[in-house]
Amino acid sequence: MALQPERLSINQVTTRDRWSLAEAIEGYARHGVAGITVWFDKLREIGADDAARRIRDAGLAVSGYCVGGLLATADPAASRARVDENRAMIDEAATIGAPCLVLIGGGLDEGDRDVAGARARVLERVAELIPHARGAGVTLALEPLHPMVCATRSVLSTLRQANDWCDALDAPDAVGIAVDTYNVWWDPDLEAQIERARGRIAAFHVADWLADTRSLRTDRGMPGDGVIDLARLRAVVERAGYTGMAEVEILSERWWAEDPEHVVALVVERASLI
Amino acid sequence: MALQPERLSINQVTTRDRWSLAEAIEGYARHGVAGITVWFDKLREIGADDAARRIRDAGLAVSGYCVGGLLATADPAASRARVDENRAMIDEAATIGAPCLVLIGGGLDEGDRDVAGARARVLERVAELIPHARGAGVTLALEPLHPMVCATRSVLSTLRQANDWCDALDAPDAVGIAVDTYNVWWDPDLEAQIERARGRIAAFHVADWLADTRSLRTDRGMPGDGVIDLARLRAVVERAGYTGMAEVEILSERWWAEDPEHVVALVVERASLI
Repeated sequence: MALQPERLSINQVTTRDRWSLAEAIEGYARHGVAGITVWFDKLREIGADDAARRIRDAGLAVSGYCVGGLLATADPAASRARVDENRAMIDEAATIGAPCLVLIGGGLDEGDRDVAGARARVLERVAELIPHARGAGVTLALEPLHPMVCATRSVLSTLRQANDWCDALDAPDAVGIAVDTYNVWWDPDLEAQIERARGRIAAFHVADWLADTRSLRTDRGMPGDGVIDLARLRAVVERAGYTGMAEVEILSERWWAEDPEHVVALVVERASLI
Repeated sequence: MALQPERLSINQVTTRDRWSLAEAIEGYARHGVAGITVWFDKLREIGADDAARRIRDAGLAVSGYCVGGLLATADPAASRARVDENRAMIDEAATIGAPCLVLIGGGLDEGDRDVAGARARVLERVAELIPHARGAGVTLALEPLHPMVCATRSVLSTLRQANDWCDALDAPDAVGIAVDTYNVWWDPDLEAQIERARGRIAAFHVADWLADTRSLRTDRGMPGDGVIDLARLRAVVERAGYTGMAEVEILSERWWAEDPEHVVALVVERASLI
């Protein structure tokens, strides 16, 4: 069944280079997109209160707030600063009505070769954030990133690991999982781990994987341009109980260079493939 | 404990652009490297018999033969051709005394979005190869490649999947696993799956992961230049019973452009980090 229009959201990183948050809110609404996920650096250009008012006035839903986490460092001062920053993001997420703050793990410190140690630190710091998230009514959405960015962006690498962390944290009211098609499509364990995530799926992010991918970070594909069976993955997350929005999130030099009017229109058109 | 010199091997792809097989055999032996893994296209320039004689004369061990598999296609004719080609490679591996033929999965056909279907086809075709491998005394070494090349090179993506396939194939005398540090280092499930592979580990390949990796295929790192704790991974495979060679295999535009004399000398020097 085609995605209902009221469930289509766009992550504003998709139009990052040419649209401010105010422009993205206005533009997405004008194209009939129902929701937006907001990035913290864009939000801070106008502040959370102004952002909240603009989003409300445009009639958009908020599907999430990006991007928290980055908690892997072994440096105590840097770690404390990141935990504080995540608390500030939880507050901002609450102000704009975001149901979740998306958390990625963070990569390895320079010279660090102990990925297991880095993972243990991230888990410990996510645990520290739980009371604040609970108080704010914001879910911490653990997002495994693709293993190719394990060293640089996220030592949280698979859905199995995210599920294991949810088990360990034992806070179903405050911690969930963000399933991103681009990051997890390759996983032989994918469907079993999505089913295991029943009741935990806090967000469903959509981008395609281009067969001729050239960059490890900024060459994600427009839905339909790549190899992922997006409709099947949506069916799998829905079979696991997910009823939220499908959030198109395309980090791509190619699409950043294009007119956002065209990019957003194309996302709306391609939503039929999700 | 440092790697014993008699356990260091180099995969000739490391010196692919500037050395023929004959030159690699001579060069590795001259630098005191104990073993070589041979690539089929290089071998076929001189033939398996001549290659076998040269390797024997140089006193090198053979740690493997590359690269078989690529069995994912849905096209019947292409599939038959690949199975035949793999049988030929098994024979070549036997002729040069290689203990294993390394198998990768192959990627998706153009337009194919059914990765589970592709995986099922690969598994079925590996099963077809077992009698021939058994007859030749050559182990089929299933090598999971990094998930970032799932679409293009190998739908066999994790050690868990390789272990599951070994369970399904139930041919411990003919099917094993190649553990490649570069492809699996990021896996949260790594140590458990290596332990699970006890008795199956047919090869141990070594390359480092560069923090600033720029290419999805040809930017592997010289041991010591990246983020992988190589000595720890060798200890883990040895705890799981592996006693074979450590085979340095670096696919890298950077190292291909350098004088192989320098590259091989550096591999020998860096073997202390493995």
